[in-house]
Amino acid sequence: MTDSGTRGTDATGTEIPVDECYRLLRTQQVGRLGVNAEHYPLIFPVNYGMDGETIVIRTSPGTKLSAAQHANVTFEVDEIDQFARSGWSVLVRGLAEEVTEAHGPELVRRTHDVGVHPWAPGEHGHWLRLIPHHVTGRRVVPGELPPAVDPRAYL
Amino acid sequence: MTDSGTRGTDATGTEIPVDECYRLLRTQQVGRLGVNAEHYPLIFPVNYGMDGETIVIRTSPGTKLSAAQHANVTFEVDEIDQFARSGWSVLVRGLAEEVTEAHGPELVRRTHDVGVHPWAPGEHGHWLRLIPHHVTGRRVVPGELPPAVDPRAYL
Repeated sequence: MTDSGTRGTDATGTEIPVDECYRLLRTQQVGRLGVNAEHYPLIFPVNYGMDGETIVIRTSPGTKLSAAQHANVTFEVDEIDQFARSGWSVLVRGLAEEVTEAHGPELVRRTHDVGVHPWAPGEHGHWLRLIPHHVTGRRVVPGELPPAVDPRAYL
Repeated sequence: MTDSGTRGTDATGTEIPVDECYRLLRTQQVGRLGVNAEHYPLIFPVNYGMDGETIVIRTSPGTKLSAAQHANVTFEVDEIDQFARSGWSVLVRGLAEEVTEAHGPELVRRTHDVGVHPWAPGEHGHWLRLIPHHVTGRRVVPGELPPAVDPRAYL
């Protein structure tokens, strides 16, 4: 699979072009950060904002931050209606790094300007930037399913 | 952190006791499977059912299945209201295995009886069982935040 932006149907739904993936990322405030730590691919819900194509996450010191720093991470956002049984999901693969003063005032200012506020109580003074390497998305639209087959087989 | 079921407040919300985590897992139909593959902690939305404390996922052959087989995986379920800015999330760490005839008819029957139907079109003839090693959850309740602090700092 490439970031070519072509649309196609694979075995698990309809692929979403890359520009549409970015548009969808801008519609949500909560996503899930995937980080390899403690021998597992840990998943953490976080709220986030976008700085262009960079994902900005504000987080507390701890598991997420230390394991994500300069590591391959993923970020997943979806909107799934479990009653309509349809929806979409976007998966970003990228590199995470903590924003520090070493990044220069311009990047620090832009990161803070994204205005992400963490929901959970506690110390959230750290910012992660996730630079995408690869973005994919897929959409599940029941109306596009072959009509001759019992729809329950897909739902 | 242990599976002791004690409730406490950590830096990122209120911990959810293990039995309550399992109750919450039974309230949803969609979760996210975390699998290490292709040098990333990949995250896939899936629908699922519970067989006791085992998570049952029906899936197609491909990345998810081959990377998850006999590997450490995670499974995350949450319900987050981005307007009320509160919610909960449960993270299961465990071992995944594909259910085959080698498991014996009783386990195969119980797995199929969970009645999980995949949403996305395509071939979904494979079943994964995820046996939990460790279950944690946290709840974010704005009403429990310290009242003296600007709530926007937490939201």
